[in-house]
Amino acid sequence: MRIVVALGGNALLHRGERPDAAVQQANIDRVATALAALAHEHELVITHGNGPQIGLLAMESEADPALSAPYPLDLLGAQTEGMIGSLLTRAMHDALPGHRIAALVTHTLVRADDPAFERPTKFVGQVYSAPVAKALSRKRGWHIARDTTGWRRVVASPAPERILETDTIHELLNSGTLVICAGGGGVPVTADRDTGALTGVEAVVDKDLTAALLAEDLKADFLLILTDVPCVYEGYGTPDQHPLRDATPRDLRHGGFPAGSMGPKTEAAARFVEHTGGLAAIGALDAAHEIVHGRSGTLIRPDLTVG
Amino acid sequence: MRIVVALGGNALLHRGERPDAAVQQANIDRVATALAALAHEHELVITHGNGPQIGLLAMESEADPALSAPYPLDLLGAQTEGMIGSLLTRAMHDALPGHRIAALVTHTLVRADDPAFERPTKFVGQVYSAPVAKALSRKRGWHIARDTTGWRRVVASPAPERILETDTIHELLNSGTLVICAGGGGVPVTADRDTGALTGVEAVVDKDLTAALLAEDLKADFLLILTDVPCVYEGYGTPDQHPLRDATPRDLRHGGFPAGSMGPKTEAAARFVEHTGGLAAIGALDAAHEIVHGRSGTLIRPDLTVG
Repeated sequence: MRIVVALGGNALLHRGERPDAAVQQANIDRVATALAALAHEHELVITHGNGPQIGLLAMESEADPALSAPYPLDLLGAQTEGMIGSLLTRAMHDALPGHRIAALVTHTLVRADDPAFERPTKFVGQVYSAPVAKALSRKRGWHIARDTTGWRRVVASPAPERILETDTIHELLNSGTLVICAGGGGVPVTADRDTGALTGVEAVVDKDLTAALLAEDLKADFLLILTDVPCVYEGYGTPDQHPLRDATPRDLRHGGFPAGSMGPKTEAAARFVEHTGGLAAIGALDAAHEIVHGRSGTLIRPDLTVG
Repeated sequence: MRIVVALGGNALLHRGERPDAAVQQANIDRVATALAALAHEHELVITHGNGPQIGLLAMESEADPALSAPYPLDLLGAQTEGMIGSLLTRAMHDALPGHRIAALVTHTLVRADDPAFERPTKFVGQVYSAPVAKALSRKRGWHIARDTTGWRRVVASPAPERILETDTIHELLNSGTLVICAGGGGVPVTADRDTGALTGVEAVVDKDLTAALLAEDLKADFLLILTDVPCVYEGYGTPDQHPLRDATPRDLRHGGFPAGSMGPKTEAAARFVEHTGGLAAIGALDAAHEIVHGRSGTLIRPDLTVG
């Protein structure tokens, strides 16, 4: 099978951990062990989140006295693709001796008129006090909103329309290369309507939705979304909470999963299964191999009932 | 022809310029214009320096209160490969509509017992006062030395032994892809003698020497080293200064070019020409097309005299 794996940002840096290089290195070694078993049997494409990493770089750039303005999110996202791509390349190299591995800087085309730009929803970077948040909003033109931790910058999460490097990824896969790509959902760019010229945009594309698009374009058989819970739960956090072992896209669409966490994952899985008739699954990183063999996680399969 | 182009760090950020994203973007658009004419006629591989960029990220990481220790240079180098790779990809995409372009995170194997680790020579990051430099040397185990601007961190520049992604680059080139790779000389790693396991190292590989190795391994016809002077000068900065239009590796080896600037360029050009019998040239970015056609720069050709 050809499998697109989407690693949650928390696979690289768990909630509450210090964002030290050594911590990420250790976590990624664990990722590599979990994925190596799959790579022996299947063609793998690995995508990954970058939430904690891009937040850290955004804070550093914001604090840098040498700069007239902090680096835009598209360039910070590209930096995280380089760093996480390198860590994953080395870890997979060690776990799969002799296997060819390539990490590609990947760009995701979004529409300049995506309605997401009018309603920013993704929190990025540090927590500010209300007055500082207000001042930054004026100075930088940032949207500021309040999440559970306090006032933070909030940016648009436009829909991924096309991955610029799809043909290259396809070619590398076909020649037996394990490809690491589309980190953080890909570096977001818009294309000029007339000239096609690319411009980076201050946005963050959802990495699970990009993974679903990638899986579809690469004609993958399986979209494997790995996170820090063992499966999708119905009624999560309520007395009725119970695990969903098996679901159709229609079931997921009626599930009402929260926008910030499980929502994009179930939406990505549902889209891939609907568009391709393939299989998707959502589960825990350490169970990657078991999930693909149907022994763990939530399996999402096509709805075979008619009309 | 297959041409490996090595762009000086100053092609992306000129001496004295602020390291702003907008400045680098504008400079890279100029690079793309200069290289597009070549890409219409030849197979191109583009490598680039990262001196100013890795210096900036090192300072930011050093100042980050969220980290127990600043990120190591291998990870910061990987970040610059992502960022500069993305900027170059977009600019070349705009300059060459329809051309397939890929930026690859690239790793360069160095020897753990390279004597360079005992004699660090590459200055990285900011200037410190003598007491701060001494304190950092104790706290971080850094080597500190004095350059013309003051006390700075100095790191090893080990010789590039092998580029891990050579086969992938070769494959992409053969299918007509313009490849951007080995930025900053490649992310330096050592391989364990027994297991082959990779470890990132706190070092900076010379980007011209990596470009020469890459050009040799890819069986390139031409190594084009672009910088901010129009050619190599004999007696540079002396009353006898005169341009060298044409040279053999032997001429360059007798030239006594300074270690920090022209030295690695002439050494890289000499090695490539000696090892392969191909051609190399050193010249100005804006003259890239003229240099390849022998109308500008310094051409380095094989020494055809016998014994």
